[in-house]
Amino acid sequence: MQTLVKKIAITGGTHGNELTGVYLVNKFKANPNLVKRGTFETLVMHTNVKAIEKCTRYIERDLNRAFSLKDLADPEKYSYEDLLAKEINAELGPKGSADPKVDFIVDLHTTTSNMGISIIIDNDNTLTWQLAAYLKEREPKVKIFTWKGDTGDAAFVHSIAPNGFAIEVGAVPQGVLRADIFLETEKLIYHILDFFEKLNTKQLEELVGTVETYDYLELFDFPRDPEGNITGMVHPDLQGKDFMALQYGDPFFLTFEGETIRYEKAEESFAVFINEAAYYEKGFALCLCKKKSVKIPTMP
Amino acid sequence: MQTLVKKIAITGGTHGNELTGVYLVNKFKANPNLVKRGTFETLVMHTNVKAIEKCTRYIERDLNRAFSLKDLADPEKYSYEDLLAKEINAELGPKGSADPKVDFIVDLHTTTSNMGISIIIDNDNTLTWQLAAYLKEREPKVKIFTWKGDTGDAAFVHSIAPNGFAIEVGAVPQGVLRADIFLETEKLIYHILDFFEKLNTKQLEELVGTVETYDYLELFDFPRDPEGNITGMVHPDLQGKDFMALQYGDPFFLTFEGETIRYEKAEESFAVFINEAAYYEKGFALCLCKKKSVKIPTMP
Repeated sequence: MQTLVKKIAITGGTHGNELTGVYLVNKFKANPNLVKRGTFETLVMHTNVKAIEKCTRYIERDLNRAFSLKDLADPEKYSYEDLLAKEINAELGPKGSADPKVDFIVDLHTTTSNMGISIIIDNDNTLTWQLAAYLKEREPKVKIFTWKGDTGDAAFVHSIAPNGFAIEVGAVPQGVLRADIFLETEKLIYHILDFFEKLNTKQLEELVGTVETYDYLELFDFPRDPEGNITGMVHPDLQGKDFMALQYGDPFFLTFEGETIRYEKAEESFAVFINEAAYYEKGFALCLCKKKSVKIPTMP
Repeated sequence: MQTLVKKIAITGGTHGNELTGVYLVNKFKANPNLVKRGTFETLVMHTNVKAIEKCTRYIERDLNRAFSLKDLADPEKYSYEDLLAKEINAELGPKGSADPKVDFIVDLHTTTSNMGISIIIDNDNTLTWQLAAYLKEREPKVKIFTWKGDTGDAAFVHSIAPNGFAIEVGAVPQGVLRADIFLETEKLIYHILDFFEKLNTKQLEELVGTVETYDYLELFDFPRDPEGNITGMVHPDLQGKDFMALQYGDPFFLTFEGETIRYEKAEESFAVFINEAAYYEKGFALCLCKKKSVKIPTMP
């Protein structure tokens, strides 16, 4: 690969109650040598300081849905997170620029779903996919999930840079630090730094072949009554089973009255983000996806 | 036992982001027959509606610390939860009255700690302990924890009534419904209703002997720097090990720099509320307790 990387950003606290990213950024700020490499600059930052202080996901709106080009250009958007997104875009972007301030963003998240250690990708860029494949080679348990969900126009923090993704690790409650999850995320960050150092010093062998991914199919809501109230829960047999195959007839939801609602699609699929706390208000209980083997993009 | 019970209360949503209680109260309101018994009245209520709407623990202060006699009588206490506590006290109490409006309160909670299905008791009253022993006989996995923690004067919701306790079930994240935990809590409530029905119809045999409890010893904070910032996490070997024995030298915390801090007391103890999200701001990482076998109080 020809690409050279001059600056990357490690961002945490985009959701202020996802503590792993918050405290990893603290650690790297206190020990900058941990993320310093010879051939590029590493910026570490808390993206939503006010939400971190309040230990809440956001103040007025989800910051990690506020980075569409449309919203960033819209002067009518002036909630706390809209203004914050414009600020961050000025600092790390601007998004879509031919000469952005950072080449790559990794945004650190956690989830109450049992996602293990996963990477959420929403672009087709070679460098992003080469890195994802590199990580999966080193840590085979890493799952790659391609998101085409509720955002439409890519609106995540990491979309500001030409390349990037979110690391999404769980299960961990909001407002809780789990040492195992902290350590897994930290290890992945060091692999990412190694990747860019190898890339810049021409020691990286471009990966060819395929990589296993879970591709977004559809968001699936809880059962609800006509007023919109939830009438059931994720079925106990499905709880915690992120990335496992769902077949026709498998238990899906359990109503409060004790009735089992079953998975009724003919095709096998895989559920992820099962019972994520933050998605109750967004109106979905889980996301269905398809397992695929995709060709790793290589440089032309 | 001679006692007759005229009215009990099942309360949920004292912490608005602990969804099991919120949705069980919804279920019982929609199906009052489930909690209706012949010899006493059952009131079901959401205690903190505004916190439930916002899916947050509280609006201004922890409602479940607002029921001390001192605070209830203090006209200077007028935060949202202070006023709410006074309202609830008028509806269910008043606390300390010779003729309170309800005889027993069970307040429904969940925790991010791996507490299984446990009962938190902070009084020595015969009826409360008879019921606790009755539940443990029917569901041996129920743990009884006696709290003499951060509250001093009993300040919990259930302290309004002459008898009562909190059900505390976990691990479940804040803002999440888990079907297994919902079902376990519901089953315990039906046992409680059976107990009072048997009591009132003289079909209850008074329990004698002893019951296993975990008694409060001390609250234990995270390691912190001089500015009060957390410098470590619950050790991965301790995470999720609520109610298991801790011996001298066992791993206790893991600092962000990777150093293990060990349990250094000579005496064995047992940790509970390990890594509960809501207790970070209260300044404790866990509660140490002592396992005991206590004589079940009987009627004089």
